[in-house]
Amino acid sequence: MSRNFKSDNVSPVCDAIMSAINAANNGSAPSYGGDDLTRQLETVASEIFGTEVAIFPVTTGTAANALALSQLVQPYDAVYCHETAHIVTDECGAPEFFTGGAKTMGLPAADGKITPRQVASAIAHAEDMGVHHVKPGALSLSQATEWGTVYQPDEVSALAAVAKQHGLPVHMDGARFANALVHLGCTPAEATWKSGVDVLSLGATKNGALCAEAVVFFDPARARDFERRRKQTGHLWSKLRFVSAQLLAYLADGLWLENARHANAMASLLAQGLRGVEGATLLQPVDANEVFVALPEAVVAALESQGFGFYRWPLSSVTSGVAIRLVTSYSTPRDHVEEFLEAARRKYCGEKSL
Amino acid sequence: MSRNFKSDNVSPVCDAIMSAINAANNGSAPSYGGDDLTRQLETVASEIFGTEVAIFPVTTGTAANALALSQLVQPYDAVYCHETAHIVTDECGAPEFFTGGAKTMGLPAADGKITPRQVASAIAHAEDMGVHHVKPGALSLSQATEWGTVYQPDEVSALAAVAKQHGLPVHMDGARFANALVHLGCTPAEATWKSGVDVLSLGATKNGALCAEAVVFFDPARARDFERRRKQTGHLWSKLRFVSAQLLAYLADGLWLENARHANAMASLLAQGLRGVEGATLLQPVDANEVFVALPEAVVAALESQGFGFYRWPLSSVTSGVAIRLVTSYSTPRDHVEEFLEAARRKYCGEKSL
Amino acid sequence: MSRNFKSDNVSPVCDAIMSAINAANNGSAPSYGGDDLTRQLETVASEIFGTEVAIFPVTTGTAANALALSQLVQPYDAVYCHETAHIVTDECGAPEFFTGGAKTMGLPAADGKITPRQVASAIAHAEDMGVHHVKPGALSLSQATEWGTVYQPDEVSALAAVAKQHGLPVHMDGARFANALVHLGCTPAEATWKSGVDVLSLGATKNGALCAEAVVFFDPARARDFERRRKQTGHLWSKLRFVSAQLLAYLADGLWLENARHANAMASLLAQGLRGVEGATLLQPVDANEVFVALPEAVVAALESQGFGFYRWPLSSVTSGVAIRLVTSYSTPRDHVEEFLEAARRKYCGEKSL
Amino acid sequence: MSRNFKSDNVSPVCDAIMSAINAANNGSAPSYGGDDLTRQLETVASEIFGTEVAIFPVTTGTAANALALSQLVQPYDAVYCHETAHIVTDECGAPEFFTGGAKTMGLPAADGKITPRQVASAIAHAEDMGVHHVKPGALSLSQATEWGTVYQPDEVSALAAVAKQHGLPVHMDGARFANALVHLGCTPAEATWKSGVDVLSLGATKNGALCAEAVVFFDPARARDFERRRKQTGHLWSKLRFVSAQLLAYLADGLWLENARHANAMASLLAQGLRGVEGATLLQPVDANEVFVALPEAVVAALESQGFGFYRWPLSSVTSGVAIRLVTSYSTPRDHVEEFLEAARRKYCGEKSL
Repeated sequence: MSRNFKSDNVSPVCDAIMSAINAANNGSAPSYGGDDLTRQLETVASEIFGTEVAIFPVTTGTAANALALSQLVQPYDAVYCHETAHIVTDECGAPEFFTGGAKTMGLPAADGKITPRQVASAIAHAEDMGVHHVKPGALSLSQATEWGTVYQPDEVSALAAVAKQHGLPVHMDGARFANALVHLGCTPAEATWKSGVDVLSLGATKNGALCAEAVVFFDPARARDFERRRKQTGHLWSKLRFVSAQLLAYLADGLWLENARHANAMASLLAQGLRGVEGATLLQPVDANEVFVALPEAVVAALESQGFGFYRWPLSSVTSGVAIRLVTSYSTPRDHVEEFLEAARRKYCGEKSL
Repeated sequence: MSRNFKSDNVSPVCDAIMSAINAANNGSAPSYGGDDLTRQLETVASEIFGTEVAIFPVTTGTAANALALSQLVQPYDAVYCHETAHIVTDECGAPEFFTGGAKTMGLPAADGKITPRQVASAIAHAEDMGVHHVKPGALSLSQATEWGTVYQPDEVSALAAVAKQHGLPVHMDGARFANALVHLGCTPAEATWKSGVDVLSLGATKNGALCAEAVVFFDPARARDFERRRKQTGHLWSKLRFVSAQLLAYLADGLWLENARHANAMASLLAQGLRGVEGATLLQPVDANEVFVALPEAVVAALESQGFGFYRWPLSSVTSGVAIRLVTSYSTPRDHVEEFLEAARRKYCGEKSL
Repeated sequence: MSRNFKSDNVSPVCDAIMSAINAANNGSAPSYGGDDLTRQLETVASEIFGTEVAIFPVTTGTAANALALSQLVQPYDAVYCHETAHIVTDECGAPEFFTGGAKTMGLPAADGKITPRQVASAIAHAEDMGVHHVKPGALSLSQATEWGTVYQPDEVSALAAVAKQHGLPVHMDGARFANALVHLGCTPAEATWKSGVDVLSLGATKNGALCAEAVVFFDPARARDFERRRKQTGHLWSKLRFVSAQLLAYLADGLWLENARHANAMASLLAQGLRGVEGATLLQPVDANEVFVALPEAVVAALESQGFGFYRWPLSSVTSGVAIRLVTSYSTPRDHVEEFLEAARRKYCGEKSL
Repeated sequence: MSRNFKSDNVSPVCDAIMSAINAANNGSAPSYGGDDLTRQLETVASEIFGTEVAIFPVTTGTAANALALSQLVQPYDAVYCHETAHIVTDECGAPEFFTGGAKTMGLPAADGKITPRQVASAIAHAEDMGVHHVKPGALSLSQATEWGTVYQPDEVSALAAVAKQHGLPVHMDGARFANALVHLGCTPAEATWKSGVDVLSLGATKNGALCAEAVVFFDPARARDFERRRKQTGHLWSKLRFVSAQLLAYLADGLWLENARHANAMASLLAQGLRGVEGATLLQPVDANEVFVALPEAVVAALESQGFGFYRWPLSSVTSGVAIRLVTSYSTPRDHVEEFLEAARRKYCGEKSL
């Protein structure tokens, strides 16, 4: 499938990570995380985040998020987040399942970034309702957001402050954390625990890994018995070294940032190019590796028929044309971006009638 | 770690499967199982089992078992199985968690193989108890068993007949299915659906894969919405092609049988050699790739100090010496077996005093 | 607590039901529903609904709703309902807990009555999202609604038609079903199964019982094993006859309708009176026994200080004055209504400044 | 149903409790436990137990047990108890459901009383197994036991000591707590928290109430958010005063002890009489209100045909005759006991052939 902007998860595995997997295949090794690579990962992760962390490799983002939340909340709790958060709309009820019933409470925000005021108001409402309502349990922020935007550290801090004021821990869904990080230009510590984040779902799969995500606790004490949860949900691998190897390759020597930088650059290029396309309207700031743009129906249809891969993204706020989502990845060739832009710039029959 | 008989999951990935993983890394591909390899796997699995199956790749045996059971039973149901079944003792409550509360009801049997009479009696008891008791929900058989023994097809049929008579579906935990199969010398069909098995957890990880298990439904209609369960539990991979590739390599060209044959042969060799060791008592028939043997404490201690890896396996039925478990795999070198036997045959100080 | 319009559940038990409880206390009786009264209830309920029903007495509305839904949906399913439905906002996550993770999907509607178009659109969205999203599982309608309005049978039919078209069963939360029924003037059958309702949570506690609700299945086959769910959730009483006695007294001789008629009449009286109060705005049609009205802050404060019991009901749509909710019950004395209206009609200091 | 020894839950409601229910029906009252009676209950319970307790009325023993356990353990935990504990065999999987997957680990003990050694050994095994096994989570003791025997306070203390040593809280299933208490002749405090019990399921329904059980926390801090669990599982009544009224009547003025004393006395009378019956073998000490006795089949059949109500209780340890269970209650008339004994003493045709 060529010129594919459907998602960053359609990308292959990057060379360095594939090499690391192959290298890890050197004879027998203790299973279930007793191996050297897994131990090494703890050290590396603690260095990178500038504090002692507890890190648990898993292999899907849904598992990382749902496991993290199950550690933070009770079955009768509420998790505040954006209304289009992955945990709300894309995990088939995994958070509810893993937590035994907790509710994700989606808050609206045009750019994907919820505000301290919204969170405070939702918590206040729950407290008014008392025992009849789910109890405020946790705050979950997507970084980068589902709309390709990125919270600034001070925005995260302000949100976390509201959460902490009410005793709520803060989870960050970092399926695209590296993309956010290179946009921010700050340290991993500043983007997380220094801004009040307690637990991070750190994604690598969308950014070049085969199957590597991790749940990172910035206070290891909070991870008590987490290994049991991972086991009980079937997410403890016997040959765990092969996930740890991916994460080590990802985090070591800046591969994660390098990959993310390319992905973001390709998205910027797309955005820049689309600004010059007649009838195109960029719908969100392009902070990371996703571009939301409205284009005339004729153009969209033409691009589809030419084999460009992307999703139509129906939005009630878009009254003219069709909204689509374009996602770039570490492996998106600049050529594909240019071909896409060139194709978008052409005149298509019927375009006027949109 | 050398001369390791701790488990078949300490083994590395076999070359053919590693090659398949590398080969699958060829550009972008549809995610979440929309890829060609996953589609191909359905065809291959149906051919191998001689009937149209629905097959769902996952990456741990615990996930395969717990997901399979969650499809078969209700939260208020009982799952009948052996008291040392993996689902009872080694999955940290995964079956209970995935099913929302169903109980595994472990039945005793010295050789790991439960009998139709036991199952009938347990079901009758439950029916007597009525609404207060969990309801008979499913039968789960481990093949090979946790004791390294193997059910004959007619034994499976007789057990399945009791289950079916009461409307219970039959699950087979085939973490070591290939080892059982080569012992039986029958077809995959005869070992499963032709003997009344409805759903199989088909393991590959212990037999040479990196991370590949599958839930196989012999009646695809029974798999209705199973894909949602897999997603909700975080077990749907975005880059699923890399699991499917492993299973294709595993099942194609008889690799799974070849690997299992070697593992079984090494276990036979161990068993045969141990029969000649003074003070050794084989505790179970060695049908597959596990050997349970009682040895004098001095011998066991000496083997441990020489760096042989294995588990002590405390058994109340063993009154003289120490029971240990030895597991062989596709990658166990004949040398290691011979070194082990040679070491076991030596005389050790204190041996008499056991 | 006098002149209490907080909720219909602050009311005492009506005489006929208390008598029935006392009468049921006549010597020993089979436990767990093996008694005569429980058997009798099945017959009476089938007569009243004009079809053979399976009826399961429980003792809270939350239990009735959550149990009913757990019978209808899977853990990975969505339940479509109004955004302020009791199952969404007032049951502390019970539906999620009982179903093992299903999501309530609240749809907005100013008058509490969702529309076929909304449901169709939500289902279409879910189908577009595929395996990543919860699957359309059931439709749940509150009758009367949380806003004191009542669906007409043809409105229920139209909603049920959409649900059925997609294979979804229809649940009705009838915590105030009797209040709806007397408003509609139709038969219980017309209000339920003849309009496409599959399962009804039939409330009695708010309408004069001590602790009596029931889950009513209009197709008894759909109730398969429901008794296990009731037991597993701790909702099977040993002395069940005392709940069945309440329901028999409630349904027999029209007590339920008589009680509801009085409650509705008192609400109408309130509404009628409030229409004549300066500065008062009725916010919803008063179909059943709830009145939502906006009054000047000074009036509301004065009523509170005079000991009238009611809840402030913050509504973003109310820009002038304060919204409050008044609930009447079978036991609300006409005097209390008149006293309330008289008090509301008085002039209070500061009223102008609202 | 006359001369009914099937269970103590077939008994009617005792007069004092029925009066209390009627008396509680005096006008409107705050719902959901905001009423005076519920508040009063907290005070009374704290007095009776000689320490400040948090007490939560519910209406079934299954709910009390399962809710208590869900507060104590995690989904990946084990609950150690006797193999015939109510939570293992009679609650249709409620503990598993409420806890989200925790396993009840039944330990054998002929007289229903598990030992510290057994518990220590089970915990040691779990610790050996590590992450693969459920984690030791709680100890649950039935008092009186399912075999009608009663733990002495020092036996409870010794068991609790083992639990505490491993950080496990201690639950007591006191469905027949009053029967145990009058047997022991100690204070409620000595029987519970002074012996190391953390949470008590206090039963009243079997001992004269209509529907009244309570979860009692001896350290109120341990009850944090328990009210949410009660709500989420549908066990928070709107008209809670009617349960609180029962518990107040039960605990005040010694009614609970008086009722239990009668029940126990009737069981003693049965036991004493049965000792003189030819062919009868008492199978357990009769500490509380249950009698397990083996009688010749001809006698059992004759008693059944004469309309005496009781359960056959198949026991593999009984090789001659048939084991039956007889339960007495606060309302068992001395006449019924004497009629039973008289009937048992008669000679029946076929008796020899047993």
